[in-house]
Parts: sequence; C-alpha cells; structure tokens
Amino acid sequence: MNVLDPSNPAIKSYVQPGKNLLHIPSAPPAPWDWQDVPHGTVHAHEYQSGVLGRQRGLLVYTPPGYEADTAKRFPLLVLQHGFGGNQRGWVETGKAHWILDHLIAAGKAVPMVVVMVDGHPLGLVSYKGDPARQREVLEAFRRELLEEAIPLVEKSYRLAEGRENRAIAGLSMGARQSLTVGLNALDRFAWIGAFSGSCDAEAVQPALEAAQDTNARLRLLWIACGRDDRYVEGVKTFVAKLSEQGVRHVCRLVDGDHSWPVWRGCLAEFAPLLFREAEPFRGGDRVCFIGDSITHQMLYHTEITLFYLTRYPDMRVETVNCGFAGDTAAGAVRRYDWDIAARRPTVATVMLGMNDVNRGLYKPGSSGPDTEP
Amino acid sequence: MNVLDPSNPAIKSYVQPGKNLLHIPSAPPAPWDWQDVPHGTVHAHEYQSGVLGRQRGLLVYTPPGYEADTAKRFPLLVLQHGFGGNQRGWVETGKAHWILDHLIAAGKAVPMVVVMVDGHPLGLVSYKGDPARQREVLEAFRRELLEEAIPLVEKSYRLAEGRENRAIAGLSMGARQSLTVGLNALDRFAWIGAFSGSCDAEAVQPALEAAQDTNARLRLLWIACGRDDRYVEGVKTFVAKLSEQGVRHVCRLVDGDHSWPVWRGCLAEFAPLLFREAEPFRGGDRVCFIGDSITHQMLYHTEITLFYLTRYPDMRVETVNCGFAGDTAAGAVRRYDWDIAARRPTVATVMLGMNDVNRGLYKPGSSGPDTEP
Repeated sequence: MNVLDPSNPAIKSYVQPGKNLLHIPSAPPAPWDWQDVPHGTVHAHEYQSGVLGRQRGLLVYTPPGYEADTAKRFPLLVLQHGFGGNQRGWVETGKAHWILDHLIAAGKAVPMVVVMVDGHPLGLVSYKGDPARQREVLEAFRRELLEEAIPLVEKSYRLAEGRENRAIAGLSMGARQSLTVGLNALDRFAWIGAFSGSCDAEAVQPALEAAQDTNARLRLLWIACGRDDRYVEGVKTFVAKLSEQGVRHVCRLVDGDHSWPVWRGCLAEFAPLLFREAEPFRGGDRVCFIGDSITHQMLYHTEITLFYLTRYPDMRVETVNCGFAGDTAAGAVRRYDWDIAARRPTVATVMLGMNDVNRGLYKPGSSGPDTEP
Repeated sequence: MNVLDPSNPAIKSYVQPGKNLLHIPSAPPAPWDWQDVPHGTVHAHEYQSGVLGRQRGLLVYTPPGYEADTAKRFPLLVLQHGFGGNQRGWVETGKAHWILDHLIAAGKAVPMVVVMVDGHPLGLVSYKGDPARQREVLEAFRRELLEEAIPLVEKSYRLAEGRENRAIAGLSMGARQSLTVGLNALDRFAWIGAFSGSCDAEAVQPALEAAQDTNARLRLLWIACGRDDRYVEGVKTFVAKLSEQGVRHVCRLVDGDHSWPVWRGCLAEFAPLLFREAEPFRGGDRVCFIGDSITHQMLYHTEITLFYLTRYPDMRVETVNCGFAGDTAAGAVRRYDWDIAARRPTVATVMLGMNDVNRGLYKPGSSGPDTEP
C-alpha cells in the first residue's frame, strides 16, 4: 500500500490518490517548470449534469491577458487525462497551464482556451474484458462533453466559433476518447491529438472509410507515443490502419514510457501546431523548393513566385528551385550539403516520396540505408 | 502519524496535508451541501510576487452568471484561512463557493466576488513566543494582499469601486489578519469579519482611539466565536476592548469549537450582511416602532412617516408607535404578545437599552430575569 507523504501538499490528481509529486526544475527551465512570464488562469466549474444526473466538475484554462482584452475571442482545446485521473491532472501533475503560458509568451503557440473534463463520467469503473461497458462509459463521456461541458465553456468564455477553432487531445484513456469522439465529430473538431494511446479501428470506421472527406476536414491528426510505452504496439497498429486507409496523420515516436514526462513533452510539441495557418513567407526570405521531378519542372515553383511578385511587389522573396528529377528522400539527404544548404535558404519546402514508393523500397524483406526497419 | 486514506480524494487543504474529508450531507441540505442551483466559478491564479520574490497562488470566486452578464460589477470579499491552511481551504474544506451559491440563489446575499489568498506569505513558519516574527509575517501578508493580490483581482475582474464595496474576513489566523489589516486600512475596507479569532489591541490602537471616526467609516465589524473554542477568552477580551473604546461591533457566540462547522456557519451568517443598505419599507408594510420614551414621544416616528408620505405618496406604509416611556428590553419582551404582536406588524424597528444601562442592571453582582449572567 502506498502512503502519502504528510508534509508534501503536491499529490497526484487521481480518483484514488496514492502518489506524491516531486517537481525538480531543470536548468535551463523545461516548458513545465515555473517561469516568470505572464500567467493565465485556471477556472474550476462545478455543475449538476443533466445527462448523468450527478455533480460534475471541469477546469478551464484561459491564456494570459484573457481577462483584460475583452474584445478578443479564442480557440478551444479539449485536453483529457488518463484512466484513474481526474480533470485536475493536466494542471496539477501535467502543468499544462504553465506549458501553455510559456509557449504563448515565446510566441510559439496561439493563445487558446483549454477545457479539462473529468473523464470518468460514471465514476471509476473497471471495464477490463467488458467492451460493452467500455463503450457505455465512452458514450456517457461523449454526450456530457458535447452536450454539456463544451456548451458550458462556450457560454461562459469568449470563444472563436467553428470547427476550425476546436481541438481535442488526450493521454492514454484520454487519447482513446479524443480519437473516438473527435473522428466521429469532424463537424465539431478539426484538430485531434492522441498521446500514448489509440482506439479501436471499428469505433472510427466511418472516418477511415471516407478518408478523402476526413482529410479534407481534418487540419491535424497528431499521434505520439513513447518507444518504451506498454501500449506502443497498439498505437503502431492504429497508425498502420490510418496509412492503409489513406487518412493523413502525423506519428511521433519519442523517448520514454507511459508517464507524465512523455505527456508533458507531447503537449509542448502539439500545442504549437494548433489553430495555425501555414506561415506565409516574409520579406527577405530565400525559399528553396526541395523535391524530385515534380519540383524540378518548375510548375508550382513558378506559381508561388508569381503570387508573391504580383500580390506583394514590395516584399523581396527569392525562390530557388532545388528539385532534382528522379530523386528520393535519401537522395535529397545525400545532396543536402552541396546542393541545398549551399543555396543558403532561410526557409525550405519539401516535396519528396514518389520515387521512394515506386522503387519498392518498402517491400517485405527490403532493407538498407534508404529504408527504416 | 496520520496516514491519508488512499481511496479518498477529498483531502483537507493544508500546507502539510494530514487529514481526509468526509462530507455527510444533511436533510434538508445545509448551506455547505451540494445543491442543484446556479453555481459560480472558482478561478486559480498563480503569479510571481514582486513583494515576496516567490511564486504565489490565490483563488477567486465569481458568482453565478458572472461570465454572462458582462455589464455588471461586483463587490469584493477577501476571505482568509487559518494557520497551516492555504488558499484552497475555504473552497475545498469550507465549501465557501457553495455557501455563496446557495445564499445568492435564495436572494439572501448580494452577488459578490471573493478572493482567497495564501495566508502564509513566507511559508509555514512557526512564530510561537516570537511576536516580532509574527508581526513580520503579518506585514508580508498585508503588503502582498494590498499591493499585489487585490490589484490583480481588480485588474482581472469586474469589481465595483470604493471601500464600501470591499470586505475582509477570516478564521483564526485569518481573523487576526482581517482585523489587523482591515482596521488599519479603513480607507480600503468598510466591512470586517473575524471568525474564532481576534488580534492584539495595540495592533489596531489608532482605530480604537479614533472610535468616532472608525464608527463613521465601518459599515460592519462582525466577530463570532464558538462557545467551546480554545480562543474564546481572547475573543471576549478583544470585544470588551471594542466596547470600552466605543467601537461599534456585533459579537456572536455560537455553539461549537475551533472547527469548520463553526466557520461554515459563520460565513453563512456573515455573507448575507455584506454590501447591503438597510432595506427600505415596502408598499403594504405595517411598521411598528418599538422603544422607550425616545420612541414614545414620536420624534423619529413622525419624521419617517412624513418621509414616506411625501416621497412615496403612492406607497401605502402604515406606521404604529409601540414606544413605552421608561421601558427596558425585558419589559418589551413581557409586553410583546399583547402590546406589540397585537398590532400585527409586517416589520418592526427596535430602539431600547437606555433604561437598562441606567438602572445598573449590569453592575457586578446583579442578577435576575432581566440580566444575562
């Protein structure tokens, strides 16, 4: 039995609290260390859930300056904890609020509102080996989130409207919830993140089958997992399914296991990607277009150059064609130093891969310096 | 050594957490039980304190509807915990947010914002037998509260301006802080509450000496203590000092000891008194003026009657003189049934006591049905 340290008020936010926290700050500070930057606010709401017929709670993070700049509206990220946790976990253990404060202060993330809901809508029920019960819990979560929790936040906070301003992400059980709820509600979410967890392919079958439509609506499907995570094989299987069906996604395998250091890192990497347009080129940029024959023949290169010349005649943007017909990803790496870096780009675009698949590099049994095992 | 129950996430909010909470709801619900009424929000702020040079936290309660009705401004109550606690105690243990939700829903309290600051500005330092150290800690608290915490709240929330819209109250150590800070800052606070605690008379000497000015500026000085509280004698001594100096105050001795049931009850009784004007009479009221000769000779009775007749000619307010020259408080109780209740008042005012003091009822050694031992 674990015993909590009675002289340490930092306790992990679990339904059944059994562990203390010891926060060791890094030098230089990690994104989850306390730093003297403008800080946002964490708001606790308690309400009587009509869907569940019980008292419920959720937390809302608002970015620094939210209270002062009362004209501005913000996008919303739903951020979910894992099994056994509660809505306070991402703040008290994950330091999500500090991570966002730092990213926003550094201009790395768009100021956003974050809602964290208790992911155990029916209490801490075990559903090991009982998929029907698991679906029931997930459905209770989905209904409360979409019908009560998000409307409460939309009513109480200044949010930018529309699915392009809604993201959902979570860790472990929260990853399952985010994928299942998110991929089945693309009319409400355009950005989805899953840290150290996946979901049953059948649970998101419609999104997988309508891959083209899914890709058109998804701005980002971001999946990450620790290489030593006990669930990493499940994540790989799910990602393979996405690839097989042609659903566009990003998969990141990172150092670590099924633990908060990984999840804090995931949030620090994921949050900067949210609610952003691709950044436009800026005056003085020297843009290298890296690619194979598609780039080499100057089709899109010319169009982009013309766009900037005609729309922004005063903005000096140089473009350099770094396409090489027949090139592969590995080929571009080999010629990087003398054929790409030598042009001194300030920005680059990459369009490669057609020659990799065509050459059957990924056929079973193939290996070598150009293939990943 | 106390061991925390690992299956109970409700833990008392202490700097050194050593006790679980078990909340047993009453039927009918107590003011601190969960009820299905509109609920306010609790906001957590963390900031780098310039005064203290360290990371600090405070909580803010906003009443139901605060987020929606963005034109309205609210008065502010500073509410402080006791020794060993922290800013979360009044919410997590005291259920101050629920108490206010219920009072506001019932129309018993004015909707207000509440700020709760960590009362240990220098950490959990013991100052037993070291009054200089105690003064140093109190001064650190005072400076942070007045120079950083309240300005942060004033900047971030829609507060009504002015000292008439500022109250400070607390329990035990928080009572000492509230009295000392409040009575020395009557330019900033008009309402002061002390639950189960008092302060050194010397620490508030200027307010005691300038009793007339203090009375003119104080809207309420409310002091309460459990009859079985280990600090009750200190509270009585302080209250006697107030009486001796002629500082107007209310003192309530209640059932209980130095514990949360008393403090929750104190808040439930104190909050409804805050930020209110005396209620005006309403159409249809039958007002009985109860008193002695001062009432009997109809001086103020006539003025009030004339005021309503001339200012509100359409409002039917009946006034009845229930003054009886030479009457005492006990005398009024004796004639209540046949001489006061018989007039069927809907409201009453009481102006009694001159004849009680004059007759020396409270001289040492005196006792009887008209005196309280």
